[in-house]
Amino acid sequence: MAPKVAFQGERGAYGEMATLQYFPDVKLLPLKSFQDVFDAAENGKVEYIVVPLENSIEGSINEIYDLLLQTKMNVVGEIYQRVRHCLIANRDAKMIRYVYSHPQALAQCRAYLQNKGLKPMPTYDTAGAAKMIKENKMADSTAIASKRAAELYDMEILDEGIEDRKNNYTRFFVLSPKKKKSGKSDLPDSGHHHKTSIIFSVRHVPGALFGILGEFAIRKINLTKIESRPTKETPWEYNFYVDFEGHLQNKAVCEALLSIKPKTSYIKILGSYKKAEFH
Amino acid sequence: MAPKVAFQGERGAYGEMATLQYFPDVKLLPLKSFQDVFDAAENGKVEYIVVPLENSIEGSINEIYDLLLQTKMNVVGEIYQRVRHCLIANRDAKMIRYVYSHPQALAQCRAYLQNKGLKPMPTYDTAGAAKMIKENKMADSTAIASKRAAELYDMEILDEGIEDRKNNYTRFFVLSPKKKKSGKSDLPDSGHHHKTSIIFSVRHVPGALFGILGEFAIRKINLTKIESRPTKETPWEYNFYVDFEGHLQNKAVCEALLSIKPKTSYIKILGSYKKAEFH
Repeated sequence: MAPKVAFQGERGAYGEMATLQYFPDVKLLPLKSFQDVFDAAENGKVEYIVVPLENSIEGSINEIYDLLLQTKMNVVGEIYQRVRHCLIANRDAKMIRYVYSHPQALAQCRAYLQNKGLKPMPTYDTAGAAKMIKENKMADSTAIASKRAAELYDMEILDEGIEDRKNNYTRFFVLSPKKKKSGKSDLPDSGHHHKTSIIFSVRHVPGALFGILGEFAIRKINLTKIESRPTKETPWEYNFYVDFEGHLQNKAVCEALLSIKPKTSYIKILGSYKKAEFH
Repeated sequence: MAPKVAFQGERGAYGEMATLQYFPDVKLLPLKSFQDVFDAAENGKVEYIVVPLENSIEGSINEIYDLLLQTKMNVVGEIYQRVRHCLIANRDAKMIRYVYSHPQALAQCRAYLQNKGLKPMPTYDTAGAAKMIKENKMADSTAIASKRAAELYDMEILDEGIEDRKNNYTRFFVLSPKKKKSGKSDLPDSGHHHKTSIIFSVRHVPGALFGILGEFAIRKINLTKIESRPTKETPWEYNFYVDFEGHLQNKAVCEALLSIKPKTSYIKILGSYKKAEFH
């Protein structure tokens, strides 16, 4: 049976494209805010959620990092979604002057919009901007959104790939309240096909972070990302979010985590998951 | 003669309060965007700029980190500014229903606003929201901004300290196109009174970051902040921003920087500066 999966945004959002890439057969639940998405899974309304973690141009999405700290869910998958912006309008559009989209999408197409002399109008969502222009029959306005949004709302694609930098990808996490059962084919051998994500905070002593990273380095475990977020309790103290290659069922990973535990003041294991293919 | 200093926001912004804390006698230049602020100094219009780097609740301000990568200016000072939000209205306000402010300020007062039944209305700036309500004689609306904004625009303070978390501070950098001349009283002895900030990227090999942090750890140099931002050139490669205790004129700091240089693919020294007092 197709699983129920929640994502943030309107139908046609990049989060929807990421969801369909991972779950080809799925019941989609679009929700307004990231908090709503986490709540949907924690209240048992969906079996999975798909949330954006970081973008290759804009960096980390702080709100998601803060929600990961609080959630009881596990990370069970990873997705890379290419962000390829389209300029979308109603079929009878003319005298186009305005372009509506999420502020980040507008910023990512700044040079293109300046060149075309279009006035940027910030909205809360990319696909939501397309939907608004369609529903309000706005003839002088366009939206920046995905190709899928244009198809879903039956609108015209005036231009494709209008982002100023082409290396534009968003990395998503798939989370579930249930731990993933490892099937035989899923069992890690060397750990090169998996990643694990953890959160920890360190005691305020010189070299504390270094001491923890050392437990990975001496075991030749490759860190792929390190992020810091304020604890919010004490100013200028941070939680660290580390992603590394390997699976919790690998001996080296287990040993590293056992060794760092006494060096942390807090540690949480978000989960191990198969590395996404990156094309 | 009072130096000319640029900050982002309207008169009464928290950036202005930080500027006045550091430069009691100053010619203030409020500017609309962070880019405008950096441009003003690089075009010789001001001698210093004051920009927010991170907030103790919200975390790092990504746009500033990206601008620090590009700038030729030096970091010459650090400021901690307490963020204490006020609810501000016109003196003849009645039937108050709306509250205008920057989305972050609205988020920081969420519980308070829900409790009072006020509808949040996002704007681009805290002090700018107060100015707008004053200029448009809006009787049913309030702004969330600093006490200073209320005084500057001659408005009434309905409530003070309305932020949900009291540990709310913003850390600012003071930058200048000129390197700071070290006066005798400013010369570092032990390095405990100074900090240094650098940016670097590492080659994509396991343990690369660990090897660099080790050069600080073996010299007992305390790291106070580590931040990562995407390089934007290659997806999932990062620049690291590290703040540590000590001055470029300390022997240990010099040695550490010389040792890490061959381990980086890029390194930039932003500057050494006196640690701000944190109360």
